[in-house]
Amino acid sequence: MTLINGVSKEHIEISDRGFQYGDGLFETIEVRNGQPVFLERHLDRLNSGCRRLSITPVDHALLSIEAKELCKHSEQSVLKIIITRGSGGRGYRQPDVIQPTRVLSLHPFPDYPDVYKEQGIVARFCHTRLGLNPALAGIKHLNRLEQVLARAEWNDPEIQEGLMLDINDHVIEGTMTNLFYIKNNMLYTSSLELAGVAGIMRSIIIELAYNHDIPLIEHTFTKDELLSADEIFICNSIIGIWPIKQIANTHFPVNLKTRQIQIWLDRYK
Amino acid sequence: MTLINGVSKEHIEISDRGFQYGDGLFETIEVRNGQPVFLERHLDRLNSGCRRLSITPVDHALLSIEAKELCKHSEQSVLKIIITRGSGGRGYRQPDVIQPTRVLSLHPFPDYPDVYKEQGIVARFCHTRLGLNPALAGIKHLNRLEQVLARAEWNDPEIQEGLMLDINDHVIEGTMTNLFYIKNNMLYTSSLELAGVAGIMRSIIIELAYNHDIPLIEHTFTKDELLSADEIFICNSIIGIWPIKQIANTHFPVNLKTRQIQIWLDRYK
Repeated sequence: MTLINGVSKEHIEISDRGFQYGDGLFETIEVRNGQPVFLERHLDRLNSGCRRLSITPVDHALLSIEAKELCKHSEQSVLKIIITRGSGGRGYRQPDVIQPTRVLSLHPFPDYPDVYKEQGIVARFCHTRLGLNPALAGIKHLNRLEQVLARAEWNDPEIQEGLMLDINDHVIEGTMTNLFYIKNNMLYTSSLELAGVAGIMRSIIIELAYNHDIPLIEHTFTKDELLSADEIFICNSIIGIWPIKQIANTHFPVNLKTRQIQIWLDRYK
Repeated sequence: MTLINGVSKEHIEISDRGFQYGDGLFETIEVRNGQPVFLERHLDRLNSGCRRLSITPVDHALLSIEAKELCKHSEQSVLKIIITRGSGGRGYRQPDVIQPTRVLSLHPFPDYPDVYKEQGIVARFCHTRLGLNPALAGIKHLNRLEQVLARAEWNDPEIQEGLMLDINDHVIEGTMTNLFYIKNNMLYTSSLELAGVAGIMRSIIIELAYNHDIPLIEHTFTKDELLSADEIFICNSIIGIWPIKQIANTHFPVNLKTRQIQIWLDRYK
């Protein structure tokens, strides 16, 4: 089910700059009991992405109405919202007047087994590196070739996520998730100044840590630092929090801290 | 006029990975007297781009037939070919079997005045920096937000191109062109190991220089090195070669070397 600028259809103009240049943004939102979860946060991030890319912001209330309408009969699914700069222009130059395109689509919720959340998943390090790009870092934009290349590296169904380093050998995130680790009761996550996506679930976990007096450090770290962690977990808006139980040959316990944050998150939802 | 997978239409599936992730490649080709100019070179580059991104290559002969058919009644225009990985997949992960999408479209030839070619153009330096990304450098892929942001920086019709630096302060290219300069009878162009697009016209100029015993150096250089050049020019498949007569307050002569390369190019065509 797809709404393009409020109309039910499945096709977009070739001239749309989302197709021509990846000139746009997206959000992936959990739908539960007919409601898009954390919708306001996702719409706020869309707006701030629009500001960073100088895309005309789409009316918040309109998006909210369309999103709720699309989701109201769905028990559990995934809502994807794509906003592009709009259609046309001469090459990279946009027209003086341009109307953003909004695409809202509903997708089946992935059937992840409960053991991922409860007992943790297996991750690997990807060979594909994230480039360094301060102008685009943090934004959930449509230029996602790096993630596509990284996700194509493995087929093994035992491996649920690939972790990506940037070209400076810093671990940044998973192909579809943000990354946290715990060491000596401190919580750590990657700095996203030069690469990576600032996820909604990441921001919620940072808030939960703050509210519960867990010291949190956002910094750059290497593979070796990560592998010396006490606990590791990944997160996004669809999976919530998954502990990592194994990266390559290194095993990690799923311990109290990760469980505690999972419980806080469930309550917060 | 647009052909999508051989059928005349103007819309593409929302699920196309070109729209979802910028997961594809493109070529911009001059059409003159009913013929796409340097078509074989463009199709070869498409193929090598497909190999780098692990996109199933599209049948060369089929693309060539479609391109020629689309262009045969056009005196002068621009042919754009977009190849995407195809439709579908679960998130970044592509389906096991996937058919690339090919989009061929014909556009009016831009009405650039002859003085640009003859007397040179005015360029500026863009604030938007190119990120460093060895995995994607050189490829004419669909992840083009950097160029969109850079091209949005100016509206002054007196300025025809913006030059982009990478985050290491090296001058790489124009928003839509590659860059060459001449100093002490040597020809220089930017190395594209970490950023930039390896243009067809760039490769032709490198060949022309080789065939005419002009020493050419591909390297990294700063703004100051560029501004100390004897002559500067930019190139792409649509404009051919435009001398740069001015960058900010620095003026450059349009001298013999650039003229000579323009003449070689005209003959080569």
